Amino acid sequence: MIYVRNCWYVAAWDMELAEAEPMALRILGDRIVLWRDGDGVVHALEDRCVHRLAPLSLGRCEGANLRCMYHGLLFGADGDVLEIPGQDKVPPQARVRAYPVAVRHSWVWVWMGDPAQAEESLIPPAVGYDDGRFLLGHGHLDYAAEARLICDNLLDFSHLTYVHAASFQAGPSFAERLPDITPIERGVRVSRWTENAPDVRNRDSVERFDNYMTYEFLLPGVLLMEAASFSAGTAAALDFGSPDFDEAISGRNFTSQAVTPLTDGTARYFFSWGPHCGHGDEAMRDRMMQLAAMAFGEDKIMIEAQNRVIAESPSDAIMPTAHDRGVTLFNRLVERLVRDERG
Amino acid sequence: MIYVRNCWYVAAWDMELAEAEPMALRILGDRIVLWRDGDGVVHALEDRCVHRLAPLSLGRCEGANLRCMYHGLLFGADGDVLEIPGQDKVPPQARVRAYPVAVRHSWVWVWMGDPAQAEESLIPPAVGYDDGRFLLGHGHLDYAAEARLICDNLLDFSHLTYVHAASFQAGPSFAERLPDITPIERGVRVSRWTENAPDVRNRDSVERFDNYMTYEFLLPGVLLMEAASFSAGTAAALDFGSPDFDEAISGRNFTSQAVTPLTDGTARYFFSWGPHCGHGDEAMRDRMMQLAAMAFGEDKIMIEAQNRVIAESPSDAIMPTAHDRGVTLFNRLVERLVRDERG
Amino acid sequence: MIYVRNCWYVAAWDMELAEAEPMALRILGDRIVLWRDGDGVVHALEDRCVHRLAPLSLGRCEGANLRCMYHGLLFGADGDVLEIPGQDKVPPQARVRAYPVAVRHSWVWVWMGDPAQAEESLIPPAVGYDDGRFLLGHGHLDYAAEARLICDNLLDFSHLTYVHAASFQAGPSFAERLPDITPIERGVRVSRWTENAPDVRNRDSVERFDNYMTYEFLLPGVLLMEAASFSAGTAAALDFGSPDFDEAISGRNFTSQAVTPLTDGTARYFFSWGPHCGHGDEAMRDRMMQLAAMAFGEDKIMIEAQNRVIAESPSDAIMPTAHDRGVTLFNRLVERLVRDERG
Repeated sequence: MIYVRNCWYVAAWDMELAEAEPMALRILGDRIVLWRDGDGVVHALEDRCVHRLAPLSLGRCEGANLRCMYHGLLFGADGDVLEIPGQDKVPPQARVRAYPVAVRHSWVWVWMGDPAQAEESLIPPAVGYDDGRFLLGHGHLDYAAEARLICDNLLDFSHLTYVHAASFQAGPSFAERLPDITPIERGVRVSRWTENAPDVRNRDSVERFDNYMTYEFLLPGVLLMEAASFSAGTAAALDFGSPDFDEAISGRNFTSQAVTPLTDGTARYFFSWGPHCGHGDEAMRDRMMQLAAMAFGEDKIMIEAQNRVIAESPSDAIMPTAHDRGVTLFNRLVERLVRDERG
Repeated sequence: MIYVRNCWYVAAWDMELAEAEPMALRILGDRIVLWRDGDGVVHALEDRCVHRLAPLSLGRCEGANLRCMYHGLLFGADGDVLEIPGQDKVPPQARVRAYPVAVRHSWVWVWMGDPAQAEESLIPPAVGYDDGRFLLGHGHLDYAAEARLICDNLLDFSHLTYVHAASFQAGPSFAERLPDITPIERGVRVSRWTENAPDVRNRDSVERFDNYMTYEFLLPGVLLMEAASFSAGTAAALDFGSPDFDEAISGRNFTSQAVTPLTDGTARYFFSWGPHCGHGDEAMRDRMMQLAAMAFGEDKIMIEAQNRVIAESPSDAIMPTAHDRGVTLFNRLVERLVRDERG
Repeated sequence: MIYVRNCWYVAAWDMELAEAEPMALRILGDRIVLWRDGDGVVHALEDRCVHRLAPLSLGRCEGANLRCMYHGLLFGADGDVLEIPGQDKVPPQARVRAYPVAVRHSWVWVWMGDPAQAEESLIPPAVGYDDGRFLLGHGHLDYAAEARLICDNLLDFSHLTYVHAASFQAGPSFAERLPDITPIERGVRVSRWTENAPDVRNRDSVERFDNYMTYEFLLPGVLLMEAASFSAGTAAALDFGSPDFDEAISGRNFTSQAVTPLTDGTARYFFSWGPHCGHGDEAMRDRMMQLAAMAFGEDKIMIEAQNRVIAESPSDAIMPTAHDRGVTLFNRLVERLVRDERG
């Protein structure tokens, strides 16, 4: 697995983590226990007792601490063992790894690298479901596939024409025309104008729009996309530059997505989607989530099948195409940072 | 896996392959996509796109071509890439392996070796379900076992006395007496007379027959067997030689069977069986298929159990018996041809 | 796997083995077929035919012999091949390994080491369900965990306070106080007085007892425990020494338990439990078995989870605590004997 460790990874939706109910999860292969204490603070420790390696995720929350429920060792949120039943003293080396945690934009983020470098300013500017501007549904989907393949998928929207022919009815333009791609700090920006197109939500309409979508794809695998329909002619008037989304006349929406590698060959895909408050209501949000469920199922079938082929292929040589520019830029960035991390 | 590649392997029953519906399958570990185009012609390609290794079997048939439905690359039946969306040019090395295909005797055959050596004369003379002489039922069964073990089973019918005591009620003679075994071109012939035996289909009958069965077992693992009951005394009158099946007085029937290695440790077993038109009707064919289902289930239990033992055995040393002569002849033929192929 | 082979391992409950019905099982990874002949005698052979490695456990009992039902080889209870269908002679080397077997204390025991050392005096003195003194229920549970981890669990009852907080409601004393631990011939003895405690079976009672429990944990992994309640003051009067169980005033009971390694990472756990005839009836036995089912389920969840963590841990370094003395003594004994066996 080639992934950057000095990153904030999405571990869960904020509401998935109930108070005093430890949750086991894997990130980058590490076994992690996550829990929310009585003050609402979330902690993350290595999920493996120092005594006989039982998982702490079967343990019991006691205030801000977590007790292993095999033989009763008590761990502080910093990973230090505080009590060992039957002994007066606790050896100083009795501790497990603690991971920096932040709750932001409705996501619980865990820093997987050097704790000293865990700056919260590195958390991608996602839009949470509690943001007032958009009405967002959310969910997650587990993949039996390498996380990198899901990132590759999100970095090349030409697959919309084929994989999502049934769900999004995306038409040939996504495959025929290349988007604008720009390297940015810790990622890639991908933007696309589609001129004189029908309303994305009513393809039978006679009215024509200039549709615009733009997303950042940021380390370690976070997609933040805004899209909307503008009056026909807007693209040309802007010389195909970025519009002001407040001037959108229809269909403005936002989606936050995050890909988290669980283990070699498995990943969790978190997503939210929904309309801008001025462009839709809860009913529209629910229809959009139904559409997303269908589309993300199409991706999952293709990517898991691709993963099986790759896992059994004697060579994983690929043949990049013109549409792979975003994929290539992002993967090179990852590889460079991983090289730097590993020295 | 020790299997000859320069052979026609049964990939499917002809009727299992609907027009324009790609089918994924494995033969000798290779991932293959099989499809029937609008003209009824069947094609086989390596099931792995050159771009990012997605399986072409999730693709869409377009005329005689097949489009990868991940990012839209279009493949000709010869394996060449014809289109790459978003690019004007297709690199000349953009191709996947194509496999020779033949449809014959109700089976779809795929040649797994050097295409230049794919002569259709090497297809074994099976009897298809569209043959006018016999009324044949057909099916297939998947094994969690090495194909070679199924071949071994079919090359030594002494197991009928034990494995098929309940289904075929074969009696002790199969184990007590050795059959006639003759090496033939690309295989082995096995024949057996059973004198003064009851009617195979009515073991309570007082009438006595001389029963004869003879089969070829041919590369890569195809069994073609004819059997019938003759008037008592026929065997001796022929000095235990081959009878004329047109002189059979009861029970004449034919079975074609083929064992295809899918991967290491898995195989597909194709079979047909039924009476000669002059010796039975559809009702008899259906009763025979019910009996076959029971018997082939008995084989599957034994062979899959044997496979599990072998897979975990520190040594796979076996102790051949007198009944193993057919097994030994055939396996030596395979080993010699594999050595020749691998140089 | 580090286990002593020169030991009697529990293979089955006596009543699990019906006459003439071969049973396949694994012990220490070996494939074994166990069968009870018409005279009630139990035999154990290597479960792998010399011919083509089919499992003899799919075979047919014929008197004291076992016939392979693939091609009919007949095996004597000593492992020698007696018949090969189709051949007059049997090669002298045609044999499989035979294992010494003993039926004792309602268990079928199999000796896994050098047959010459298989002394029945080494069978641990378990209490069978046919013993007149106790009313015992019995069962077994399969683990997806290394047998050694179950032994470790049984050698440190401090886990009762945590793992069995819900079932046994064992209270803090098991974790707070260390038991008496004594090395004994082929194992460890563990004993514990709990003074001024409520009735184990009625924790709301006001009456107070001195509760005593003592068990031997013997090679290869057999726990034999007796427990009872005595009048308050008994522990001090005996200077915390062993009481006479005939002077127990309540709750006297016995449990026999055995852990058998099946393969790397799997084990079978056999258990019986019930009251002394003078301290309970069938209804109490059944309530105790219901409680045991709940408690053993709690163990299984913890130990299988622990096993998964260990299986994936880069290091299996543990940090023993004061409560691990019994575990350490027993594991050192095992390691010393294994070293001696392997020379």
